[in-house]
Parts: sequence; structure tokens; C-alpha cells
Amino acid sequence: MDEKELKERTAETAQLYFSTIKNEKDKPYNLWSYFDKELAKDMSLYITGKMYGRGKIPHKTRQLITVASLTVLSRPDELKLHIHAALNVGCTKEEIAEVIFQTSTYGGVPAMNTALSVLKNVIEEREE
Amino acid sequence: MDEKELKERTAETAQLYFSTIKNEKDKPYNLWSYFDKELAKDMSLYITGKMYGRGKIPHKTRQLITVASLTVLSRPDELKLHIHAALNVGCTKEEIAEVIFQTSTYGGVPAMNTALSVLKNVIEEREE
Amino acid sequence: MDEKELKERTAETAQLYFSTIKNEKDKPYNLWSYFDKELAKDMSLYITGKMYGRGKIPHKTRQLITVASLTVLSRPDELKLHIHAALNVGCTKEEIAEVIFQTSTYGGVPAMNTALSVLKNVIEEREE
Amino acid sequence: MDEKELKERTAETAQLYFSTIKNEKDKPYNLWSYFDKELAKDMSLYITGKMYGRGKIPHKTRQLITVASLTVLSRPDELKLHIHAALNVGCTKEEIAEVIFQTSTYGGVPAMNTALSVLKNVIEEREE
Amino acid sequence: MDEKELKERTAETAQLYFSTIKNEKDKPYNLWSYFDKELAKDMSLYITGKMYGRGKIPHKTRQLITVASLTVLSRPDELKLHIHAALNVGCTKEEIAEVIFQTSTYGGVPAMNTALSVLKNVIEEREE
Amino acid sequence: MDEKELKERTAETAQLYFSTIKNEKDKPYNLWSYFDKELAKDMSLYITGKMYGRGKIPHKTRQLITVASLTVLSRPDELKLHIHAALNVGCTKEEIAEVIFQTSTYGGVPAMNTALSVLKNVIEEREE
Repeated sequence: MDEKELKERTAETAQLYFSTIKNEKDKPYNLWSYFDKELAKDMSLYITGKMYGRGKIPHKTRQLITVASLTVLSRPDELKLHIHAALNVGCTKEEIAEVIFQTSTYGGVPAMNTALSVLKNVIEEREE
Repeated sequence: MDEKELKERTAETAQLYFSTIKNEKDKPYNLWSYFDKELAKDMSLYITGKMYGRGKIPHKTRQLITVASLTVLSRPDELKLHIHAALNVGCTKEEIAEVIFQTSTYGGVPAMNTALSVLKNVIEEREE
Repeated sequence: MDEKELKERTAETAQLYFSTIKNEKDKPYNLWSYFDKELAKDMSLYITGKMYGRGKIPHKTRQLITVASLTVLSRPDELKLHIHAALNVGCTKEEIAEVIFQTSTYGGVPAMNTALSVLKNVIEEREE
Repeated sequence: MDEKELKERTAETAQLYFSTIKNEKDKPYNLWSYFDKELAKDMSLYITGKMYGRGKIPHKTRQLITVASLTVLSRPDELKLHIHAALNVGCTKEEIAEVIFQTSTYGGVPAMNTALSVLKNVIEEREE
Repeated sequence: MDEKELKERTAETAQLYFSTIKNEKDKPYNLWSYFDKELAKDMSLYITGKMYGRGKIPHKTRQLITVASLTVLSRPDELKLHIHAALNVGCTKEEIAEVIFQTSTYGGVPAMNTALSVLKNVIEEREE
Repeated sequence: MDEKELKERTAETAQLYFSTIKNEKDKPYNLWSYFDKELAKDMSLYITGKMYGRGKIPHKTRQLITVASLTVLSRPDELKLHIHAALNVGCTKEEIAEVIFQTSTYGGVPAMNTALSVLKNVIEEREE
């Protein structure tokens, strides 16, 4: 895959995942660019283009394992972005809740509670 | 669901997941029982019976999100058990490797390396 | 112990611990119920009824080890609930502060600071 | 309290906690001294003398909250030392197991399993 | 070094690091004092006086490794204080950003994002 | 910078850092390649070539912040590699020990102990 294809795949994947994030300040890419435009581009091509865009497993699976990882690590700001992404690629809110419930066995109940709270907020925001 | 059904579902799920774990010392249930037989039973019915056995999402998805969670938390002993479980419910080694690769974005590369190393050992052990 | 006794013990323990939590939104049970009423009941019976309610060690000890755990894991929202519970079962604020101070050796000073800050807020809120 | 008293209290507390640790290589103080003798002394006076030795809460409580903290942080080497200390100040193995069981709600089941395994090893070692 | 010298070195180091923190509530020392004045003094002499003040490595290096540690542990409140300290001892914002970018390999991208966001806020606050 | 230059810089940086790692099994690149040759190459170019090789801060600083990060995250296998790298780019063992000592304030004493133990082993291994 050449540079041009990688850029297109990165842009398509970013659009697929994050088109419902309304606030530009919530997008990590803008934060990275504030400090280093070139590194921001490299990270975006690597993470969104190469990793998320490489097929191998379906987008729905990718987003559910992202939700699980961010829940047990307790990273609520990033989780918000990926709950949007999970819903945007077709996961239902019931599936996402189930993933969060299950992770309590590994990462504990407090981390689960934080994640459920983020999920509830995103659902309510999208239903408005 | 009554007590008898819950016990059956717990036993079936445990058999499905962990039948390839040869060493009894590796099974958490035996460790729990060493300290408290009744609590061991309660935890097993709750985690394996109620949580893993409740449907809602497929066993393959459950095991992949477990692999992701245990990778980012860096819990290699538990991960070994669930890589067995993932393979036993039909995940391929390529899918499991892909999940571990992806989690490096959230939990870092060193946690990914530890998990890949566990996966490699389990694969080699099972191929013997 | 039968189902009816377990429910009573769960209700009594929840009342003992959390009666001073005024805001219903702060109670994890309500968050769990929003997503899954039956699982919420199961988790509550298991955690509050079976685990906290099973005797073996005094409520004061249980709450102090909870405070220690939530401090080193840096889970301030959950900590707030259990500082209430600790005070409600008879721990003094000096004991709770001492537990938090001691954990800095294991979980670091920044996690200690976050917990002391939560403790200060709860004390001031209750003294109003 | 002057320097001489602090040194005495540090030595007494270290003796009370760690007299059953047979292997000198397991004692952190020796590791610290290998790199910096003066800092080793300062850290020891601060942690063992000032913190553990300052009263305020009983040694049994201090060790149980240490066990809880090290369990949820998953620090098995340090946990081994403090399970010795807990037993040496009069905690029973049942109490220690109970503390470890309870922490699973906050730090997850895999961290609990690691800690139970350390506890089992220490008990068997001491019973020989 | 005697007590008097240690106190002076502690005060000088605290002044060097934290003179730009305007809000007294943000200073951990005040929080510690609220609960225990003597322990607050001991901790301050130990951490700021003995550890930060002992030379061995330059202040700039100390602050950059502090920024790295607080980033991967995701401790944004404490990070804010040490980004001030890093700037106050002569680190540039480019160096600090670079340290934070690099840690993403070890602690993951979400922890990096949180830290970059804190850095951006501190820079904007100081430029006003 | 074109692809060819990036590959050269990656190879040079890897040689500079890891030439003293004798055991091929300890090198993450080989583990990555076992599962996915192309992704292994991409990750190596990104982490070693782009991130470590991009200048901005000196190699010595990069390795000391890596040591700090891996210490507080408690990743001893990865830490071993980067203690080698730190020594290979000119950090002294005293500087590395000092960095590890300092991180105890943020990540706790048990994580510090694990890291000091790794450092001691690497030093003894290299002095043989």
C-alpha cells in the first residue's frame, strides 16, 4: 500500500468512527497538531490507517475490545470517543453495556461504574 | 433460572472454556477452595455461571474482550487461561494476536509484548 | 442462607453503609439498573449481601481496606461512597486519613493526594 | 522524638515485622544499600520508623491495609514480605484471605488470584 | 546535613519549583497539613528536601522524569504542578511535549492525550 | 525523510540501543515478527525510527524517561532492555539508580524495588 492509499484509508476510517464527535476540542488529532503537526500526521496514519484500517478483524470487534481496554484502564475521555465509534460501526448499546459489565471481573467494579456512566451520557446525548 | 440450572450452566461453561488446562494448580477455583469452599462456589456460580453463561454476546466476543482486558492490565497468568478459552470457543490464533496488537494503543507496547509472549507459549504448548 | 435472608442482609448492609449518600445518581445500583435490572440485583446480592455481609472481619476493617484499595487504584468517585460508609460504621476521620497517608508507600503520593482531597470534601460536606 | 529514638523505633518495628524473612536478598533495605547507603537509611527511618512506627492505628490494621493495597496493585514480591509481617503481628491467615477476597471487587479477580497464591505459598513455607 | 540545612534546602527547592502555583488549594502541602501538621512537615522534608534537593541529577532531568511518570500513571492534577516546575527550572514546552509524546509507547495513547491536554492548559494559563 | 532514510535511522538507533542484548528471544521485534512480519516492520519504523530517532531531546534523556515510565508501570522485562539502552547511550548506573529512586514518590516503593532489582541484575551481568 502506498502513501496515498494509506491517507485515504486513514481519512475513511476516521470518518466512519468519529463523525458524530461534534466538539473539535475532543478530537486527539487536534491536540497532537497543536504541539507537532508532522508527528500528529504520523500517529494518525499509524493508529487509524495502519492499525484500525488493516482489516483482520471486523470494526465492531475492534471497537468492543477498545471499550473493554479503556474501561479497565479507566480512561473516561477516550472511552467517550470510542463509545461513539462503537455505535457508529453498528454495535448496539446493549452489547457495549454487556462488554463493560463483563470487564468488572478483570478491572474491578469502580472502573466498570465509571465506564457505564460514560456510556449513559453518550446514549442520552445521542438521543436528544 | 433456579439453582440447579445455574449449577449446570456453570459446569458446562467451565468445561467449554477450560478443558484444555491440564494442570489443576492453574485453575483459580482450586485456589479459592483452598481458603473457602463456599465462597469458591459462590464466585464460580456468579462469574462463570451468571456472567459468562448469560448469553447476550457470543463466547468468542467474550473471550476476545477478556484477552484485551488482561493484556492492558498485564495479568499474564490469567491471560494464559483465557487464551486457552478463546481458542477452545473457536477464536483463531490470528484473531487473538490481532486483539493483542491493537491494545498497544491503549495499554502500551510493553504490556502487548508480555501478552504476545504468553500467546506464543500457549500456541507452542498446544501444537506439541 | 436462603434467598430471602440474603435479600434482607443486602438491604441492611446497604442501609448501614450508604444511608448518608443523598444524591441517588451517586449510587452505582441505579446505574446498573438503568442498563440491566436483573444483573443489578445479582451484583448487589453478591457484593453487598454475600461479600460485605458475610462477617469474618468487622465492618470497620472492611471499609478501611476498601479506602486503601480505592486510594492506590485512584478511583475518587467510588472512594467518596466508601469514605461515607467508613464514617457510617464508626471509623474516625483520623483513622481514614491515616490509612490514606500510609498507602502512599505502595501507590505513590499523587494517588494519596487525590484521596485526601476526597476525604476533606466529604468531611466538610457532612459537617455542614 | 530525636534521631536516636527514631532509629530505635525503626529497628524494633523492622524486627517485629520481618524477623521471619530468612533470605537477606528478599529485604528491600539491602537492595537500597547496594546503590546508596545514606538514602537507604533515610528511607528506612521514614517508612518503617516514622510511618509504620507512629501509632495512630494498630499494627494489625496497618498490615491488612498493606495487603489490600499490594493485592490491587499486583505487587507479589512485596506482598510476600507483608503477609509475613501481617502474620507476625497477629493477623490470622483467615483474616488475610478475607481481605484479599474482598479486594477483588475493586482490583479485579486476577489480582486477587495472584495474591491468594502468594498467601498459600507463605502459609505452606511457615508450616514446614 | 543538619535539620536547619535540610529545612532551608526544602524551602529553596519548593520556591524554585512551585512559585508560579497561584492557588494555595493546589499545593499538596496544605492538604497534608489540614490532616496532620507534623507528618506534612516530615513528608515535605523527605520528598522536597532530601529527594529533589539532593543533587545527583539536574533539576531539569528530575522534572522531565516526573512528567513521564505522572503521564503514564495518569495523574493530571499532580502533573499540572510538575509541568509548572519543569518550566520553572528551564525546560521548554517543546521538551515537555516531546517527553509526553514518547511515553505513549509505554503507557498508551489515552494517557498521553490527558497529559498533552494538561500541558496545553498550563501553557495557555502562563501566556495570559 | 524518505522510506530508505527511515529504515537506515531505525537500524542505527536499534544498534545503538540494543547491541548488548545477547539473547535474541529478549528482542520484541522477533516476537512481533513471529505473528506478523509486516506489522513488526511498521511498528519498528514507527517506534525506533520515527519516535526514538527524531532528535528533539538527547538519547540519554529519552532513556531516562523510559526507565522512569517502565518503573512506575512495573514492566520489568521491558525495563531490562532499556537499562541496557540507557547504559549504551552513556547514562551511568548512578544516574539510572537515581531516576528509579525518585519515581517511588509517584509510583510507590514496591515498583521502585522491582526496578532496582532489574538494574542490579543488568549491572552484574555486564560486569562479568
